[in-house]
Amino acid sequence: MTQKRIYFGRFISTPKPDELLIRTGAVLVDKKNGRGVIEKADWTVNGPNDALSKFGVEAPVVTADENAFFFPGFIDTHIHASQYPNAGIFGKSTLLDWLTTYTFPLESSLGTDKSPMYKDSIEPPDPLARAKAVYNRVISKTLSLGTTTASYYATIHLEATNLLADIAFKKGQRAYIGRVCMDRPEACPDYYRDESTEQTIANTKASIEYCKSLDPSGELVAHIITPRFAPSCLPETLSQLGALAKEEDLRVQTHISENLNEVKWVKELFPDQSSYAGVYDHHGLLTSRTILAHAVHLSKEEMQLVKQRKTKVSHCPASNSALGSGFCPVRTLLDEGVEVGLGTDVSGGYSPSILDAVRNACIVSRHVGFLNGGDSKFNLSVAEGLWLATMGGAKVVGMEGRLGGFEEGMLWDVQEIVMGNVDSSGGGADTGVDIFGWEAWEDRVAKWVWNGDERNVKRVWVGGRLVHERR
Amino acid sequence: MTQKRIYFGRFISTPKPDELLIRTGAVLVDKKNGRGVIEKADWTVNGPNDALSKFGVEAPVVTADENAFFFPGFIDTHIHASQYPNAGIFGKSTLLDWLTTYTFPLESSLGTDKSPMYKDSIEPPDPLARAKAVYNRVISKTLSLGTTTASYYATIHLEATNLLADIAFKKGQRAYIGRVCMDRPEACPDYYRDESTEQTIANTKASIEYCKSLDPSGELVAHIITPRFAPSCLPETLSQLGALAKEEDLRVQTHISENLNEVKWVKELFPDQSSYAGVYDHHGLLTSRTILAHAVHLSKEEMQLVKQRKTKVSHCPASNSALGSGFCPVRTLLDEGVEVGLGTDVSGGYSPSILDAVRNACIVSRHVGFLNGGDSKFNLSVAEGLWLATMGGAKVVGMEGRLGGFEEGMLWDVQEIVMGNVDSSGGGADTGVDIFGWEAWEDRVAKWVWNGDERNVKRVWVGGRLVHERR
Repeated sequence: MTQKRIYFGRFISTPKPDELLIRTGAVLVDKKNGRGVIEKADWTVNGPNDALSKFGVEAPVVTADENAFFFPGFIDTHIHASQYPNAGIFGKSTLLDWLTTYTFPLESSLGTDKSPMYKDSIEPPDPLARAKAVYNRVISKTLSLGTTTASYYATIHLEATNLLADIAFKKGQRAYIGRVCMDRPEACPDYYRDESTEQTIANTKASIEYCKSLDPSGELVAHIITPRFAPSCLPETLSQLGALAKEEDLRVQTHISENLNEVKWVKELFPDQSSYAGVYDHHGLLTSRTILAHAVHLSKEEMQLVKQRKTKVSHCPASNSALGSGFCPVRTLLDEGVEVGLGTDVSGGYSPSILDAVRNACIVSRHVGFLNGGDSKFNLSVAEGLWLATMGGAKVVGMEGRLGGFEEGMLWDVQEIVMGNVDSSGGGADTGVDIFGWEAWEDRVAKWVWNGDERNVKRVWVGGRLVHERR
Repeated sequence: MTQKRIYFGRFISTPKPDELLIRTGAVLVDKKNGRGVIEKADWTVNGPNDALSKFGVEAPVVTADENAFFFPGFIDTHIHASQYPNAGIFGKSTLLDWLTTYTFPLESSLGTDKSPMYKDSIEPPDPLARAKAVYNRVISKTLSLGTTTASYYATIHLEATNLLADIAFKKGQRAYIGRVCMDRPEACPDYYRDESTEQTIANTKASIEYCKSLDPSGELVAHIITPRFAPSCLPETLSQLGALAKEEDLRVQTHISENLNEVKWVKELFPDQSSYAGVYDHHGLLTSRTILAHAVHLSKEEMQLVKQRKTKVSHCPASNSALGSGFCPVRTLLDEGVEVGLGTDVSGGYSPSILDAVRNACIVSRHVGFLNGGDSKFNLSVAEGLWLATMGGAKVVGMEGRLGGFEEGMLWDVQEIVMGNVDSSGGGADTGVDIFGWEAWEDRVAKWVWNGDERNVKRVWVGGRLVHERR
């Protein structure tokens, strides 16, 4: 069987911020070594046969519909897989009470029958069965939304975290799997806490080994070191996790400066450190492979430190808005030279959709502009939002040049986007996006961004493997 | 054929702000005189047969699924039907350049071949055919989203506006039809402007008569007097429209204080008036039947004036965010005693969904809270958002006590909401809302609000007539 495929049709991508590149043509994808990589791209190809002749190969041709286009898969740089069942459930809470009211009970229920969620349970709790249901659904859901790569937080539980790795690997999503580290008694409830630094490190190492056993290359599934956030870990644990990240050359993910009370708390818990970013830096966790979620309230000095360390930021606008955390100044971060991608932050964020994160990033940027005297320089365009969701995300997860576009050498992590049928006059379309037919393609892309959802995602590939097809 | 129907199942509504009332039972709807009104409600009924016996009638029973519920239809207090094709197309514009760049060209294309939208057209323009396509789709779409009542802006064109009335009447949506009045040369382009006060008034009167000819009762379809906004009308026109509204006892709709540059412009154009609200008041347009869209930047004095006149406000959060207009202080308006409902403001707002407006109202309220030192009193809850979308909207359109709930005497303007199948383990649900099965009903409602769309709307009735059923 041939390992080559040709994809023909319209290709849309954002090679640079604010550049929406719309091309027709074809790419040749070779799936040697089990990974589908773009071997050649030709933007003069005008049909399937022309593609075969120009590439000079015999290979099946996958054609995108006239009204469809190929778009790079989305990269969710911050999502709590374990919190997916709570998407939309947060009441009027803000970060710290949200954790204790909604989040710790749910997360703990995936690993222990001592979770408060089970206190009125009639049937005997089966935490692992619950973890299986939750993780199957969240991966199916995010794939259906075009998320080809996700950086996941699981829970503290080793077995359930391994299950998340299994499911991601089996379904074929590119996934970084974080066993959550939290062992500081002031910040974690008794029912949901690692017992000690030793246990935290031992379970983290076990999760690292498990991910390696699944995917020795680490290209599809890999562990990511995950101290929940500074308050949740003993200082000794933070140091040992920093050392482990260095030793194993692994990605790190954590939270920073999401909420003003949290920032204050970090100051109290770490009185010797000059800043929140300084805490991570002191413990060896501010690396070029570290993803910091939120970064809403960083000082200019912290931005400079983050930039110097080449540490990345995951912007989670829906979450920041839902929990009333504040307005992340994305334009300022970018201007300062910090690399930024998008995160859904389910379930601080209510939506598992990165397209929704694009929308919310655009909106929050307008709020930042309004608060700065209506200065439009803060506004993110649709193209910039999409760039953050693809190219920006690729930088954040350390896959720059390999994900986020259609250039030769890049992985075929791609979604095929369809829109409302232009012939459905009066009857409504079968997606949420109504196309009238006269719209220019860049306007169609805007319509997709502002009203699209999984109904617009016809097919999704990761590394050349078809991992989702709309029913 | 019997004119009675029984509806049995779970009923959810918000009789008061912040009260989510969840009941099971049945209501008996009588469709005499062509309007379906709730004759009786019984919250002790436990099944279809019990309903028949308790109501003592022979009537068909419509049953909501175990996982479904009846919810009052949404009321969109501010939507530009003519702008629907531009939903999502606004770039980085703000109000005044958005009007000239995107909006006037599209609106004019529904009535004149001189629209700039036709300048590169190959085929001969057919404005009325375009109007027909647009209005058919926007009404089908909003019905599919559970909008049972909408207050529409059409365009300046009489014939196309009459067509909107026809289509709403035929499809059975409760609709207020506004022929847009704009005749002040400083504010309107040559290609899209009423010629004179006389023409504005004559065409408005003709539209009033046309709506009356369709629906003499005015209960389903009625004209609403629609000066676009203060700058767009000659002062004499504003006065005559105010007089006409009084003479005919009609609703009025217009815009107010959406954007700071607009507010400044109004000051320049009406130097003798003390405020933007004062302009409308001076011309007899600040009535108890007037709907003011936006009200983002009202002074306390203007709020007091609006309250005294019992004038209503349509809060359009998605639009205010998308166009960077600012943060409407809904809690403050409510505390001041101003009546508020929700509007999508398509296409300043990018979404035709009132559920999306509920989400955005909740989010914007958190921003207002954040900007007031994190004070949570500004936060709107999910229940309050839904209240604004139903009961609040009913007050705004002058239908208090007749729309928005399930009490006896109310019209059966209702949507049936379904959610993801709880048995679809791992395979994803066929709506955007994933239910795991352990969620309390109020949490399910929150999940619907935060991730729902038209896939959750199974059936929609207006005045007892089934006007939409999900395919």
